[in-house]
Amino acid sequence: MGIIVQKFGGTSVGSVERIQNVANRVVEEKEKGNHVVVVVSAMGKTTDSLVNLAKEITENPTKREMDMLLTTGEQVTISLLTMALIEKGYEAISYTGGQAGIQTEPHHGNARIVHIDPAKIENDLHNHRIVVVAGFQGITEAREVTTLGRGGSDTTAVALAAALSADRCEIYTDVDGVYTSDPRYVKRARKLESVSYDEMLELANLGAGVLHPRAVEFAKNYHIPLEVRSSLQKDKGTIIEEEITMEQGLIVRGVAFEDEITRMTVFGIKNPMTSMSSIFSKLARHHINVDIIIQSQSEANHTNLSFSIKHQDLQDALEVLEKYREELGFTHIEHESRLAKVSIVGSGMISNPGVAAQMFDVLASNDIIIKMVSTSEIKVSVVIDEDKMVNAAQVLHETFQLDQVATPEEIYIK
Amino acid sequence: MGIIVQKFGGTSVGSVERIQNVANRVVEEKEKGNHVVVVVSAMGKTTDSLVNLAKEITENPTKREMDMLLTTGEQVTISLLTMALIEKGYEAISYTGGQAGIQTEPHHGNARIVHIDPAKIENDLHNHRIVVVAGFQGITEAREVTTLGRGGSDTTAVALAAALSADRCEIYTDVDGVYTSDPRYVKRARKLESVSYDEMLELANLGAGVLHPRAVEFAKNYHIPLEVRSSLQKDKGTIIEEEITMEQGLIVRGVAFEDEITRMTVFGIKNPMTSMSSIFSKLARHHINVDIIIQSQSEANHTNLSFSIKHQDLQDALEVLEKYREELGFTHIEHESRLAKVSIVGSGMISNPGVAAQMFDVLASNDIIIKMVSTSEIKVSVVIDEDKMVNAAQVLHETFQLDQVATPEEIYIK
Repeated sequence: MGIIVQKFGGTSVGSVERIQNVANRVVEEKEKGNHVVVVVSAMGKTTDSLVNLAKEITENPTKREMDMLLTTGEQVTISLLTMALIEKGYEAISYTGGQAGIQTEPHHGNARIVHIDPAKIENDLHNHRIVVVAGFQGITEAREVTTLGRGGSDTTAVALAAALSADRCEIYTDVDGVYTSDPRYVKRARKLESVSYDEMLELANLGAGVLHPRAVEFAKNYHIPLEVRSSLQKDKGTIIEEEITMEQGLIVRGVAFEDEITRMTVFGIKNPMTSMSSIFSKLARHHINVDIIIQSQSEANHTNLSFSIKHQDLQDALEVLEKYREELGFTHIEHESRLAKVSIVGSGMISNPGVAAQMFDVLASNDIIIKMVSTSEIKVSVVIDEDKMVNAAQVLHETFQLDQVATPEEIYIK
Repeated sequence: MGIIVQKFGGTSVGSVERIQNVANRVVEEKEKGNHVVVVVSAMGKTTDSLVNLAKEITENPTKREMDMLLTTGEQVTISLLTMALIEKGYEAISYTGGQAGIQTEPHHGNARIVHIDPAKIENDLHNHRIVVVAGFQGITEAREVTTLGRGGSDTTAVALAAALSADRCEIYTDVDGVYTSDPRYVKRARKLESVSYDEMLELANLGAGVLHPRAVEFAKNYHIPLEVRSSLQKDKGTIIEEEITMEQGLIVRGVAFEDEITRMTVFGIKNPMTSMSSIFSKLARHHINVDIIIQSQSEANHTNLSFSIKHQDLQDALEVLEKYREELGFTHIEHESRLAKVSIVGSGMISNPGVAAQMFDVLASNDIIIKMVSTSEIKVSVVIDEDKMVNAAQVLHETFQLDQVATPEEIYIK
């Protein structure tokens, strides 16, 4: 008798009818003889409606009050889903994040989980109850209500799976798995049977959007097998787990892309040793995520620093840097928006050093100018003009033959 | 510098615009130099919408899940009102019932407050924050979310006022005070400047509907002056406080009425001594409120027992009694619905024994048949046919001259 954590996103619980469907999926798993914990998001557009209500009142709601407001969304879903399960004759109980023992940092809007006390849920499972938990939310030690930020429900599901030593964590979503690229934009994008945590992490971080990177990290650290699958169809999804790939053909596993990137350049930094860490720690403290970083030497021993951020963070970033201009010691800042990041990802790239060169080559031959580059062992990212993004993804998908299943068939030995 | 608790009901916070109005009222009080604690209900029809959502899923939602669902309503309001106050430049903080330290019995759907820990709110007030608390809800020792049942937000407000030793508790509602009778039905019904707790208690219990009886009880026990007033107009409302009335003219202060009453009669009770307490304790345990009780002797030393309940409780009451028929020892049950209760209330009735007779007289001369009677020191209630209810209220209002201000003018010495 295993423990299965199932997570259903906002679209999957978007109406009473869909909640009934979710109840059926949950019951199916329960009938297989498993203990089931269900994590749900707010219904469909609920979060958006709540955000709009807040906007009618103020342009700058405090994060604390936004958390108070938004957490009601999941609370509605857990009660309705639990009612549906009880109506079907099953014992079920709903918990808010706080009641489920999900303790977070004392930080509103984007809190990290610091601890989960699974005792209550374990007791319920022991008593054969289906447990329904509100995703995206937790509680601080002072019992303040917090939210986990974007993709928080995925994180809730995986963190609960880890705390409960679950056998599997299933992420139900409106796509049926992880693809070699976004099928809405890239022709012949193909569903992958499985990917490694690291590959998924790169894909998620790079905006593949199916799973939140924090959730994947959690799953990796606690060795929780994840399955991304559709809440509407019964097809198998994509399994994310630790693996040794025997795959021959596919060095690159996927092409990810992300728009609304802004490149900032800070000129004339006097003390790069201290300033660089200062800049990034100040940005981090203001919750501005910096992605690609490039440092370059200029005349007179001054250093220039370029980095990429999400366009939405530009104003905040400018304010933070201007505020500490004296302390940081730089001359001026430039920024360029309407950029995109396109990345190729694959564990096999570690032993294939020519892949990056091949990528640059094909982009150049398609007149796509590379503005920033970043590489890791299993991915290469480039920043290019936003309007070239889809084109770049398409030619890379073709170049690395991602539409073709590897020969021999994708085989993994755990 | 006093502490004022203000409570705004669902209609008063029914839209973003109204929430802004409420924020203005709160700020006005704050600007007078007072500490302000605000208790709010769910916005307008929110609770109804949530109940309907639940009904789409099941006819019989569990009370626990209904509490989980409904408490989101007030949580939305507290966050929005707090945002509005912050937007106006005031320090404000929202709390759910649980966060505000409102601990209840471990009973869903209709829990009583057992304890309030005001430390957190006191600290906020000390720091000049406006505190906004979700009405209608609390938390059990096991941190289960509970609701206080109908009129629960009034109870929250008064209980908080008591716990904080507040100087006054203002109940803002869609009526502008307590009337001699319901002005929607009774011609020339008149707003009272003040009533005593006991009068209000009788009026509230009798369905005057402005204030929940539990709230009035709380206020009486802790000597909290209440003011019922309109959230839309600035007129003075009605003050409810302890008083010695010097009033000469008005023996009767108000006429209250309530429809959807059912009379049940239990026939052939063998052991009235034990059975009577058994019957009412079993009904109470199922949260069926019994109002008027009449015991009568029948042939063969058997006792018949009549009592009135709300019509909505009829099915439950029948089930409870049938379940324990053997134990309770009765022969059969009859019930009559479509009845109403009409009551006259006034502290002055204590020293005026002729009032009840006058009431029966005027009803008889208007062809209104009295089916049950109940009297206390400050009220007389009769149960009559539902379709005679408004007529009875009108003739009683006229008979006791409630449209006329007392001469000398209503004077109270505290």
